[in-house]
Amino acid sequence: MKLWEKGYAPNPLVEQFTVGKDPELDMELVPYDILASKAHSRVLHSAGVLQDDELTKLVNSLEDIYTEYQQGKFSISVSEEDCHTAIENQLTQKLGDLGKKIHTARSRNDQVLTAMRLFEMDAIGSILSAIDSLIGFMKTFADLNSEVPMPGYTHTRKAMPFSVKDWMEAFIDSLYDDKKMLNAVLELIDQNPLGTGAGFGVPFPLDRSISQKELGFNRSLDNPLYAQNSRGKFESQILSSCQNVLMTLNRLSTDLILFTMPEFGFFTIEDSLTTGSSIMPHKKNPDVLELVRASVHQLTGYQVQVQNTYTNLISGYHRDVQFTKEPLMNGLKLCRDSVEVFALVMQACKPNTANLSAAMSDELYTVQKVYDLVKKGIPFREAYKIIASQFFNKKS
Amino acid sequence: MKLWEKGYAPNPLVEQFTVGKDPELDMELVPYDILASKAHSRVLHSAGVLQDDELTKLVNSLEDIYTEYQQGKFSISVSEEDCHTAIENQLTQKLGDLGKKIHTARSRNDQVLTAMRLFEMDAIGSILSAIDSLIGFMKTFADLNSEVPMPGYTHTRKAMPFSVKDWMEAFIDSLYDDKKMLNAVLELIDQNPLGTGAGFGVPFPLDRSISQKELGFNRSLDNPLYAQNSRGKFESQILSSCQNVLMTLNRLSTDLILFTMPEFGFFTIEDSLTTGSSIMPHKKNPDVLELVRASVHQLTGYQVQVQNTYTNLISGYHRDVQFTKEPLMNGLKLCRDSVEVFALVMQACKPNTANLSAAMSDELYTVQKVYDLVKKGIPFREAYKIIASQFFNKKS
Amino acid sequence: MKLWEKGYAPNPLVEQFTVGKDPELDMELVPYDILASKAHSRVLHSAGVLQDDELTKLVNSLEDIYTEYQQGKFSISVSEEDCHTAIENQLTQKLGDLGKKIHTARSRNDQVLTAMRLFEMDAIGSILSAIDSLIGFMKTFADLNSEVPMPGYTHTRKAMPFSVKDWMEAFIDSLYDDKKMLNAVLELIDQNPLGTGAGFGVPFPLDRSISQKELGFNRSLDNPLYAQNSRGKFESQILSSCQNVLMTLNRLSTDLILFTMPEFGFFTIEDSLTTGSSIMPHKKNPDVLELVRASVHQLTGYQVQVQNTYTNLISGYHRDVQFTKEPLMNGLKLCRDSVEVFALVMQACKPNTANLSAAMSDELYTVQKVYDLVKKGIPFREAYKIIASQFFNKKS
Amino acid sequence: MKLWEKGYAPNPLVEQFTVGKDPELDMELVPYDILASKAHSRVLHSAGVLQDDELTKLVNSLEDIYTEYQQGKFSISVSEEDCHTAIENQLTQKLGDLGKKIHTARSRNDQVLTAMRLFEMDAIGSILSAIDSLIGFMKTFADLNSEVPMPGYTHTRKAMPFSVKDWMEAFIDSLYDDKKMLNAVLELIDQNPLGTGAGFGVPFPLDRSISQKELGFNRSLDNPLYAQNSRGKFESQILSSCQNVLMTLNRLSTDLILFTMPEFGFFTIEDSLTTGSSIMPHKKNPDVLELVRASVHQLTGYQVQVQNTYTNLISGYHRDVQFTKEPLMNGLKLCRDSVEVFALVMQACKPNTANLSAAMSDELYTVQKVYDLVKKGIPFREAYKIIASQFFNKKS
Repeated sequence: MKLWEKGYAPNPLVEQFTVGKDPELDMELVPYDILASKAHSRVLHSAGVLQDDELTKLVNSLEDIYTEYQQGKFSISVSEEDCHTAIENQLTQKLGDLGKKIHTARSRNDQVLTAMRLFEMDAIGSILSAIDSLIGFMKTFADLNSEVPMPGYTHTRKAMPFSVKDWMEAFIDSLYDDKKMLNAVLELIDQNPLGTGAGFGVPFPLDRSISQKELGFNRSLDNPLYAQNSRGKFESQILSSCQNVLMTLNRLSTDLILFTMPEFGFFTIEDSLTTGSSIMPHKKNPDVLELVRASVHQLTGYQVQVQNTYTNLISGYHRDVQFTKEPLMNGLKLCRDSVEVFALVMQACKPNTANLSAAMSDELYTVQKVYDLVKKGIPFREAYKIIASQFFNKKS
Repeated sequence: MKLWEKGYAPNPLVEQFTVGKDPELDMELVPYDILASKAHSRVLHSAGVLQDDELTKLVNSLEDIYTEYQQGKFSISVSEEDCHTAIENQLTQKLGDLGKKIHTARSRNDQVLTAMRLFEMDAIGSILSAIDSLIGFMKTFADLNSEVPMPGYTHTRKAMPFSVKDWMEAFIDSLYDDKKMLNAVLELIDQNPLGTGAGFGVPFPLDRSISQKELGFNRSLDNPLYAQNSRGKFESQILSSCQNVLMTLNRLSTDLILFTMPEFGFFTIEDSLTTGSSIMPHKKNPDVLELVRASVHQLTGYQVQVQNTYTNLISGYHRDVQFTKEPLMNGLKLCRDSVEVFALVMQACKPNTANLSAAMSDELYTVQKVYDLVKKGIPFREAYKIIASQFFNKKS
Repeated sequence: MKLWEKGYAPNPLVEQFTVGKDPELDMELVPYDILASKAHSRVLHSAGVLQDDELTKLVNSLEDIYTEYQQGKFSISVSEEDCHTAIENQLTQKLGDLGKKIHTARSRNDQVLTAMRLFEMDAIGSILSAIDSLIGFMKTFADLNSEVPMPGYTHTRKAMPFSVKDWMEAFIDSLYDDKKMLNAVLELIDQNPLGTGAGFGVPFPLDRSISQKELGFNRSLDNPLYAQNSRGKFESQILSSCQNVLMTLNRLSTDLILFTMPEFGFFTIEDSLTTGSSIMPHKKNPDVLELVRASVHQLTGYQVQVQNTYTNLISGYHRDVQFTKEPLMNGLKLCRDSVEVFALVMQACKPNTANLSAAMSDELYTVQKVYDLVKKGIPFREAYKIIASQFFNKKS
Repeated sequence: MKLWEKGYAPNPLVEQFTVGKDPELDMELVPYDILASKAHSRVLHSAGVLQDDELTKLVNSLEDIYTEYQQGKFSISVSEEDCHTAIENQLTQKLGDLGKKIHTARSRNDQVLTAMRLFEMDAIGSILSAIDSLIGFMKTFADLNSEVPMPGYTHTRKAMPFSVKDWMEAFIDSLYDDKKMLNAVLELIDQNPLGTGAGFGVPFPLDRSISQKELGFNRSLDNPLYAQNSRGKFESQILSSCQNVLMTLNRLSTDLILFTMPEFGFFTIEDSLTTGSSIMPHKKNPDVLELVRASVHQLTGYQVQVQNTYTNLISGYHRDVQFTKEPLMNGLKLCRDSVEVFALVMQACKPNTANLSAAMSDELYTVQKVYDLVKKGIPFREAYKIIASQFFNKKS
C-alpha cells in the first residue's frame, strides 16, 4: 500500500516508470531509515504524541525490522515504491494503529533526505578510510624505492631527471588534498534535515535537537525550504569531491599503463592483476588500471546527471530528483571500489631498476648543463641557447 | 572458465571489479550473440573449418541455448565474465571438442561488437515504433482540439494568440525530425563488424558476406581497426540521436507541468497518471511528467560517459570501453520507456476550453493592432510605438 | 537605439550583462542577416507592403551595408545589442521611414534563427571541404607507405601485425562516416525559419516560398512554434556531428603522440610543427597534436552548454538561448581549425620504416601460430592453450 | 621572440592554432605575473644570482611595466604567445643582459601556475565579496516582508503555507553554504607553486619561503610533479565551488520568473531590469533572470572542459591544459557577474501582498487540518485519510 493511497489505481506502466529502480536502490538505505525513524520516535515522544510504552514498542519493532533486514528477510515491492513505505507498512502490520502514528510530523521528503544524508556520510567515511589505507601502501612503495631514478616527462617526452620516490609522493600529496575536499563536503552535508517536513515545516511543535543529537548531526538544517533545495546541490558537491580522487587515480593509472608497456618496462604488475585475451595467447592486459582510468568518466556522467536534474526547477521537491539517487549511489561506490582496488595495485607493482636506470639518457640533463653555465656567470637565456645549439648539432 | 584462462587465479576483488555488471547487462545480449554465433558458424563452414554435420550440431545447440534462455534457464556467472564466454562454455559442455571450434577466426572483440550493434539496431527500431504510436495519439489530440485557442508565450510571458492544435503539431513536427536523426544513426551503425577479429583481422580466409547477409547488415565494416575504433563513437551518436527525442519530450512535459497547474488549468491529466503526497492529502502530482522531463538529463550523463571514455586512448580495444555498455543500454531503454509512457499521457490529457478561452486576454493582440496600422500605411516601427504607448498608458 | 525602445533606460550593468558578447559574435552573422533581409524585402514586396522602388532602395542599401562590412566599416554598439538592430538602424539612417518598414511581418526571433541557420550551413560546408582535403593527404600517406609494417595494439600492448596503410585507412573510413553524420545534420537544419515570427506566425499573409527559394533552403519550417523550439535542439545536433570528427582526430592524435616518442620512433613530425620549452633546450614538443587531442573536450563542453540551456523551459523563445550562440560558433570554428591543421600534420609526418620493422617482434605472431595448428585440425581453444603455454614457458 | 626560439620558423597556421586566445586572455594575468616575477627576483637575489643593484633594477622595471599596463600601453603579440614571454621580452629590452637572468631557476610551467593561482584567489575573493553584498540586500528584502504570506509549492503544485521571509532566507542559507565551499577551495589552492620548475624541480638551491611569503601563499606546493598535476584538478574544483552559487541563483531565478508572471503576480520587478520585444509592443521580459538562470549551464560546460582535458594524460605538463584557461576565466567572471547583477534584481523586486494573500487558498491548509485531528488522538495515517476524502468530495 502506498502512503498516499487515495482510492484510484495508477496505471501499471506508469507505476513501473515512476517507481523505477527505487526498490532495488533503497535496500541500501534501510538501515539509515530505521535509525532516523527511531530518532523521530523520540522526537514524537518528547512532543507528547507517543506515550512511553508506545515509544518502546516502536523502537523495538524498528530494531526487529533491522534484524530481519540483516537476515535477508526484508524486501520492498514495486507497489510500496520505496524503503520508507515498506518500513512504515511493516510497523503498521506489527503494531496496528501505533504504526500509523510514526508518520506524524514528518514527510517522506525530510525522511528521504535524512536517510540519504546518513548514507552519504557513511559512504564518504569509508572512502576516507580506503584512501588512508592506499596512502599507506604508496608510502611503503616510495620508501622501498627511494634511490631509484626515473625520467620525468612533459608533453609525453623526456624532460628532466626525477625519481620513483618523488613520482609516488606526487600522488600521495594529491590524495591528501583530495581528503581535504572530502572533509569539506562532509562538513557541508552534516546538517540534520529531519523535522523540515515537505519543505515548509510541520504545524506541530518539535524538539529537533533530539533527532540531531541521536543521529549525530553537527548542525541543523533550519530553513525547511532550504532543506529541500539542498537536495541535488549537496549531492553534486559530494560527487565533485569524489571526482578529485578519481582524477588522481586516473593520472596514476595512465602513468602505469604507459610505464608497464614492455617498450618501457619501468614497472611490473603481478599476473594476478592482469587479464588475458580470447584469441591472443601471449597477452597480459592491465584491465584493472584501464577500468580505474575510465572510472573518472563514469563519475563525470553521474555528476552531470545530478547537477542537470537540479536546475531550472522552482523551489520545493520535484519527482525529478528521484533520478539523482542512482548516480549518487553509483558514484560513491565506484569511488570507494577504485581506491580499494588500487591498494592491491600498489602491492602488486614493482619498479625495474635496471630499465629505469637505462632510461636516464643524456637529454634529461640539458637543464643541469645550462645551470652549470649560469653558475659561471652566463645569463640564463644565453646559457640556454648555447646548450640548445650544442644539443641539436650533436644530434644531426 | 574464462576464455583466456592461463593457469593463474585473478584476485577475487579484482575479478569483481573488472567483471562489474556484465553478467547482469549481458542477459539482454544473449539472443544477439546466439544469432551472431550461428552466422559465424556458417562462415566457418564455408571456410572448411566446420563439416556439414558440425555446422548442423552447432546451429542446433545454439538454438537450444536460445530456447533455454527464453525459459529463464540461462545464466552468466561472475567467473564467466560475460554472455560470450557463457555461451561458448555451454557449447563446449554440449558438444565437447566441437564447441572449442566456434571461436576460430573470431575474437571476443568483434563478437561483442556484433552483438552490441544488433542489439542497438533492434532498440532503435523499437524507439521508432514507439514514436510512431505516440505521434498517432498526438494527431488525434490535435484533431480533436482544432478549434481551441491557446495563448502563445515567449520569455514565459503571454505573447500572441495561438491554438492547441498548432501547439501540439509543433511537437509532432519535432518528432518527425527526431526520427530522421534516429534513421541516420541507424544507417551509420548498419555495418557488419563480424570477422574483424581483435582489430587487425584474422589470419584466415573468411567470406564475411555470409555473416553480413545472415545478420541483415547493409554494409561491411571493412577496416578491422576502424571496427574497434568505432566502438564508443557510434554509441555516442546513438545516444545523441535519442537525446533529440528526450529534448522534444522535455519541452512538452515542461509545458504540461505549467499548464496543468490549477493556476492555469489549461489542461487536465487523468488521476491514474498522477501520484499523491505522504502528508498532504489534497495533492495530485504530475510525477510522470516530471520524470520524463528529467530523463533528458539522465541521458546527457550517459552520453558524457560514453564519449569521455572514448577519448585520449590510442587505437584498438581498451577495457575502458566496457564502461560504455551500461550507459548505452540504460539510455536506449530510458528513451523507449519515456516515449511509451508519453503515449499514455497524451491519452489521459484533455484541454479545458473554458480556461483556455478566458486566457486569451487583450495583450495577446497588440501585434494584430500594429498590423492594422501597417495596413493603413504606417511604417511598422512607427505603428509599434503607437500601440506600445497606448498599451502602457492604459495599464497605468 | 533598441528595436523595443520604450522610454525607460535599462540599468547599465544590466545592459552589459544581457548584451554579453553579442556585438562581437554577431560580426560573423552580418552577411547572413543581410542576405535574409534582402529575401524578406522581396517577400514584403510580393505582399504589397513595399512598392517596386522601395524594394530596390532597400536591397541596394543592404548591399551597401555589406560593402561597408567587407571594408571593415561596420560595427555594432552595446546599446544596439546585436547585428539585427545595427542593420535596421543603418537602414533607417540611410532611408528614413522606408527603413522602418523592413521589420514588418518579421520578428527578431525568426530573423536571428534565419541568420544562424545560414551561418551554420556555411560552416558545416567548410568543415566538409576541409575533411575532403584532409582525406586527400591521408590517402597519399597511406599509398606512399603501403608496404610498411606496424604493430597493432590492444590494451596499449602489442597484439597482432598490422600495417601503416591499414592504420591510416581506419581513420579515412572514420572520416567518411563522420561526413555522413554532418550531411544528415545539414539536411535536418536545411529548413527556412523566416516568416515564423516570434513563434506564433505573423498576422499578415506572406509567401514564404519566396524567401525559401532565395535563401536556398530545401524545405520550410512550417510550424512557427517548432521553429522556435528547434533553436538549441538543432544546434546541439550540429555540435554532436562535429564531435564525431574530433573523436576521430583525438584518436589519431593520441596514436601519433605515442608513436612519435623517441622510445618508439615509429613516425617523425617535421620541426616546423613542433614547439620548444622555456627551460629545456633539447625539447621538441608535439603541441599541435596535443591541442587537437584536447579539442574534443572543448567541444563536449560546448555541446553540454547548448543542450543544457535548452531543457526545462516551456515552449517559445527565452533569453537563455542567447548563451547557445557562443558555444555553437566556437565549436564550429574549432572543428574546422582542427581539421585544417591536421592536413598540415599529415604532410609533415613520415614513418620510420626501420623502427617499425624492428618493432615487429615475436609475440605479434602468436595468433598466426594458433591458426597454423587450427589448419592442422586442432580445435581453436586447444591450439590457443598450446601456444599460450609455449609462449609463457619461453619467457620465463 | 619566443622563449624557446631555436632557429626554425613555426608554420603560421600552426602558430595561430597553438597560441589561440592566449594573447587576449593573458591581459588579465599581467599583474599577477609581474608580482610573481618580483618575488622570483628576490629569490634569485637571496640565491646569489642577482646582485643588490640588479634586484633593484629588475623590480623597478617590473613596476614600470605594470604602470604601462595600467595606462593601456602593454600588449602581447601572437609571436610572443603569452604574457610571460611579453614581460620577459620587455625586461630584456629595458635591461639587456640583466633581463635574460630573470628566467633563471624557473620554468614557464611554474610561472603560469603561479600567475593563475594568484588570479584565481583574487577572483574567488571578489565573488565572496559580491555574495556578501547580495546577502545584505536579501536580508533587507526578507526583513521588509516578514509578515507577507506565500504559498509553498511541491511538484509545481500548491502544498503548504509559507512566507516571503522564509522563502528568501532559504536562499540566504544556501549562499552561506556556498561561501563555505568557496573558502574550502580557496584553502586548497593557497599553495605556492613558484620554484617547482617544469615539474621536476630546479637544479639550483632556492629559498622558496621568500616567494611564498611575498606572494602571501599559506603553504608551499612541495612536490614539483604534484604542482604540475594540480593544474586542471584545482581549477575543476574552483568551478565546482562556483557551480554551487549558480545553482542557488538558478533556483531563485526560476522562482522569480514564475512568480512574476502576471498570472501569479506575486512579485514585480522594476522596468529598468526588464527588456522588450522587437514586434510585441506590450512585452516586458525578465531577460536578466533568464540569463542568470542559464549561467549555471554555461558553467557546467566550462567545468566539463577543464575536467575532461585533465584526464587520460600521463603526469607532467601537456599543451592540452592551455584549453583550461579560457573556461576557468570565463567561469569565474560569469559567477561574479551573476551575483552582482542579482544584487540589482533584489533591489528592484517587490512583493505584491494582495496577490500573495489571495493565493493562500484552502488546499494549503489540509496538513493543518490533519494535525488538528492528530491532536485529538487520531493516528496520523487515519487523519490523513479522513481529510483526503473530505477534500476530494468537496471538489467533485
